[in-house]
Amino acid sequence: MRKCEIRDRRRLMDAAMGHIACDLTVKNVQLVNVLTGEIYKAEVDILDGAVVRVREEGVLSPLPARETLDGEGKYLLPGYIDAHIHVESTMMIPLQAARAVVPWGTTTICTDPHEIANVMGEEGVRFMLHDSARAALRQYVLVPSCVPAVPALERAGAAFGAQEVGRMLDLPGVVGVAEIMDYPGVVQHSARMEEIIEEGRKRKLLLQGHAPMVSGGALAAYRIGGPVTDHESNSAQEVREKLRCGMHVNLRASSIVDHLDDLVCGLDGMTNLEMVSICTDDVHASDLLLKGHVNYIVARLIAGGMEPVQAIRLATINAAREYGFDDLGAIAPGYLADFQLCEKLDGGQPQSVYIGGKLVAKNGAYVAEIIGDESCGALPNTMHVGHITGPESFLLPVPGDQKTAQVLVLGRTGHGIYRSGEWMELPVKDGFLSLENHPELQFICVVNRHGAGGHVVGVTRDFGLREGALASTVSHDSHNFTVVYRDAASAYACLKALEAAGGGMCAARDGACFEVLPLPVAGLMSDKPCKELSQDIHRAESAMQSLCDKSFSILNLAVYALPVIPGMLITDLGLVDGSRQTFVDGIR
Amino acid sequence: MRKCEIRDRRRLMDAAMGHIACDLTVKNVQLVNVLTGEIYKAEVDILDGAVVRVREEGVLSPLPARETLDGEGKYLLPGYIDAHIHVESTMMIPLQAARAVVPWGTTTICTDPHEIANVMGEEGVRFMLHDSARAALRQYVLVPSCVPAVPALERAGAAFGAQEVGRMLDLPGVVGVAEIMDYPGVVQHSARMEEIIEEGRKRKLLLQGHAPMVSGGALAAYRIGGPVTDHESNSAQEVREKLRCGMHVNLRASSIVDHLDDLVCGLDGMTNLEMVSICTDDVHASDLLLKGHVNYIVARLIAGGMEPVQAIRLATINAAREYGFDDLGAIAPGYLADFQLCEKLDGGQPQSVYIGGKLVAKNGAYVAEIIGDESCGALPNTMHVGHITGPESFLLPVPGDQKTAQVLVLGRTGHGIYRSGEWMELPVKDGFLSLENHPELQFICVVNRHGAGGHVVGVTRDFGLREGALASTVSHDSHNFTVVYRDAASAYACLKALEAAGGGMCAARDGACFEVLPLPVAGLMSDKPCKELSQDIHRAESAMQSLCDKSFSILNLAVYALPVIPGMLITDLGLVDGSRQTFVDGIR
Repeated sequence: MRKCEIRDRRRLMDAAMGHIACDLTVKNVQLVNVLTGEIYKAEVDILDGAVVRVREEGVLSPLPARETLDGEGKYLLPGYIDAHIHVESTMMIPLQAARAVVPWGTTTICTDPHEIANVMGEEGVRFMLHDSARAALRQYVLVPSCVPAVPALERAGAAFGAQEVGRMLDLPGVVGVAEIMDYPGVVQHSARMEEIIEEGRKRKLLLQGHAPMVSGGALAAYRIGGPVTDHESNSAQEVREKLRCGMHVNLRASSIVDHLDDLVCGLDGMTNLEMVSICTDDVHASDLLLKGHVNYIVARLIAGGMEPVQAIRLATINAAREYGFDDLGAIAPGYLADFQLCEKLDGGQPQSVYIGGKLVAKNGAYVAEIIGDESCGALPNTMHVGHITGPESFLLPVPGDQKTAQVLVLGRTGHGIYRSGEWMELPVKDGFLSLENHPELQFICVVNRHGAGGHVVGVTRDFGLREGALASTVSHDSHNFTVVYRDAASAYACLKALEAAGGGMCAARDGACFEVLPLPVAGLMSDKPCKELSQDIHRAESAMQSLCDKSFSILNLAVYALPVIPGMLITDLGLVDGSRQTFVDGIR
Repeated sequence: MRKCEIRDRRRLMDAAMGHIACDLTVKNVQLVNVLTGEIYKAEVDILDGAVVRVREEGVLSPLPARETLDGEGKYLLPGYIDAHIHVESTMMIPLQAARAVVPWGTTTICTDPHEIANVMGEEGVRFMLHDSARAALRQYVLVPSCVPAVPALERAGAAFGAQEVGRMLDLPGVVGVAEIMDYPGVVQHSARMEEIIEEGRKRKLLLQGHAPMVSGGALAAYRIGGPVTDHESNSAQEVREKLRCGMHVNLRASSIVDHLDDLVCGLDGMTNLEMVSICTDDVHASDLLLKGHVNYIVARLIAGGMEPVQAIRLATINAAREYGFDDLGAIAPGYLADFQLCEKLDGGQPQSVYIGGKLVAKNGAYVAEIIGDESCGALPNTMHVGHITGPESFLLPVPGDQKTAQVLVLGRTGHGIYRSGEWMELPVKDGFLSLENHPELQFICVVNRHGAGGHVVGVTRDFGLREGALASTVSHDSHNFTVVYRDAASAYACLKALEAAGGGMCAARDGACFEVLPLPVAGLMSDKPCKELSQDIHRAESAMQSLCDKSFSILNLAVYALPVIPGMLITDLGLVDGSRQTFVDGIR
């Protein structure tokens, strides 16, 4: 359930009646009333963090407020709501993410702590709730529904059944069941999905969908099964079909996937966009620093021709309605006083941002207090990799005494992030596979880092890595330690370096690490502020790139162990054919 | 809580996936998709009363349905939802009201059994739920919040506190707290209102407002206090202010109050009408017979220039959203299969109407089965008037042996239904007031009919009654026996006639009743069908009119004992100054 934010309705009512004074009156503004789609001159009275009354031009207040803010004729609009974001993708802890997004006008984000849950389970979810409370941004949490994403093919740090999900749904600040990505489980009535959905349904909380490419009868079945939203549309046609089908669609533009211009075309001819909102899903720190957050999408919608108040509606009241928040997303009596003052209605950076009637950002800078210091305090090291005791674990043994072996080499197909497998005959030296004469190939290894032991070595041709090793503990969805390497000693050096750092990313050559980006919070996040972290990430990426012939992307390393997608993959349990959802042998 | 209508989601999902056959496919229609505001060719697959899938032109069904309906190119639109209606005002029991409204395209009504609750308490509310289940129309009930309306000034047949309201809110088919009309109680934090509102809030049910003429700070306070809707706007300005204030506004056109043309002007300049829906509040049987129901309002909106799909949205999805019904108001997967086939989008009578995928009306005739017979069975006689034993009770005794007395005579002011009091010197004969030489005056008497004993006699100049008596047990809000008369014997004859009939309306002269309209269900409703009842009502009105010089209206008699309104009134406890909410002496 969501925290009830209005504690004393009587006081607000008394203030509306003029019996007691308000804290603040915002004067001299052009109010953007997203409820009616109108813009008009008004004054807004605020008490205890909520809007008490909106007075139109010429209507006097019976009692003066303790403070007055002159809006200087600017537009007053509600704060933006991000309908779906994984904070972990920013690599910032919730506190720092808050400081990064609030100056762009965002006042609420609805988060899915899917990544940290896969590492730390309920403890991770609770950490996100706890840390988010240290900054002014309203951060609501949805409970991850698919931990692990594919139980039979990978081992995460936790496993959520209906009991765990139900328990977390009752935490204050929790507002729904997060992206129900096990689409086959839903339409085939899997017990896990049915029970988890029931936990959300009986609490009347949002059942967030996740249905990329799901269409026709399958989409209808998925919708009937429970999930009511989707943010995975990548084409106009997908947007149109999902809206017509009665799903609430989040238009997504993330740092990873951005088809916004096409998605908007899916709205052509529709006279009602009440079931459309906006989300950023996965957004990188550098994008938050340079481009913006929800406002960046609003700006593009307006620049593309959408009527400004309509675009603002998508980013405010529509998202609130999606979640059933009846006190967010508008500026009216009984709504929380989350708003922004803007010179123009163009999605640009607001001049100032208020949350609960308090100034939280001004001219691009977060100015609200934070609880505690910048650090989130000591968290358990989640790098449980003691079972790997030397470089030899990173060699690929070939049974028998053959001179060559047939090896399944993983490689990108050119279709997005999907990979195929190609059989190659490769030399064997002293019982281990050798890539000496194949500079275009690399080893890849996934090491379970959640205490279950085990690791798997394979071969890839994706990275153009000439020498050394690249490693990361950000590796969807189980976030096991994933390393690409030409020599085992460098791979082992990466493991030891990240074990010491509590997770992160690193680059090594000649058996020694020369660059480490520590992500000590679950091996996923840093507690550094956005700007500093962006610089660190840039430096780490450059270091990793320096080992490669091809253009290197952290993303590529992060989705190698993701068995929910089709194509060939590698997890801590083996090589996986994601299309058939089975293990395959890598050597024959 | 509302009955969960979809019992087996798995079957619907299996049908959507093409694993099992549907019951019905509606082919060859122009689908009005109120979710997106589009109209396009489609086929609709239905199973177990719900929409399984909407296939656009050219998309084939994997399995043929057991039955096919050819829409012959007509428009397929969702059934209409009346957001607020008192079924008792039709004077029909829920079964018969259903048969009257369904042929007009209405498939759901949200009812406030305020009248029967004032007579029969919880038993009355349960009766309405029970009887409504006998016909195909979906009738949802809101629990009356103000029984009695004014506890200190009248005695009804029941009194609801938070405990009673909470108990009824848990009944299947109950969807909210009905019109919270005690506006002063809300803004002044009365315990009764706070506790009743809390019962609705904690169940996440609708808190239906009722705020005529409430504006400015008072409106804001009322909104913050809980109620989120209003259907009492009587001007464009009221509509505009309430929408801007974040209230959901029901545009009302009832048989009693109809400012629709003005109300619509309140929407001028608004680009978003998502919080606007339609209600009929009080509608007479004859209007249902001749004019229509929700469709009549839709027709007027369209004729007035509103875009047809927008007008239909007001009457369908917007009302569903108001209540949080996620399976009503649209034609999409998972929605209940309530729809109508119409030749034109003009609000005219549909060619056919379906509820739960079953044909319920065709060419203006209700064709669905009913459970039981037309009668609703034996109900307790609610005429508990044994304490009145003869005509003498209807005389007005004047204390002392004076020849004349100063008497407060009640009369209409010309401002709506409001009355003033005027002091007149009138003759006294044998200790009783005499109207012999004042043909323009009448006695009026309210007799408690709920077993509490007591009656009050006053004088009025409103009816132009020349002789005899007119009586009714439809008398808001307590529905005590109310009679206007020139001679006590006729008044007593009316009482005995309505006691025998179990309530209703009647006319008498010379001490004998010559016309009775029996309303044996709580003294408010008949179990006759709409057409027959309309004729009976017309005959009774004519008979009552025949005794009067002025134009007679049943309504006038029905709002004489209504102490919630300003002006002079009479209840079973005394003469009341409604403006000051106190009793007044009628003789001095």
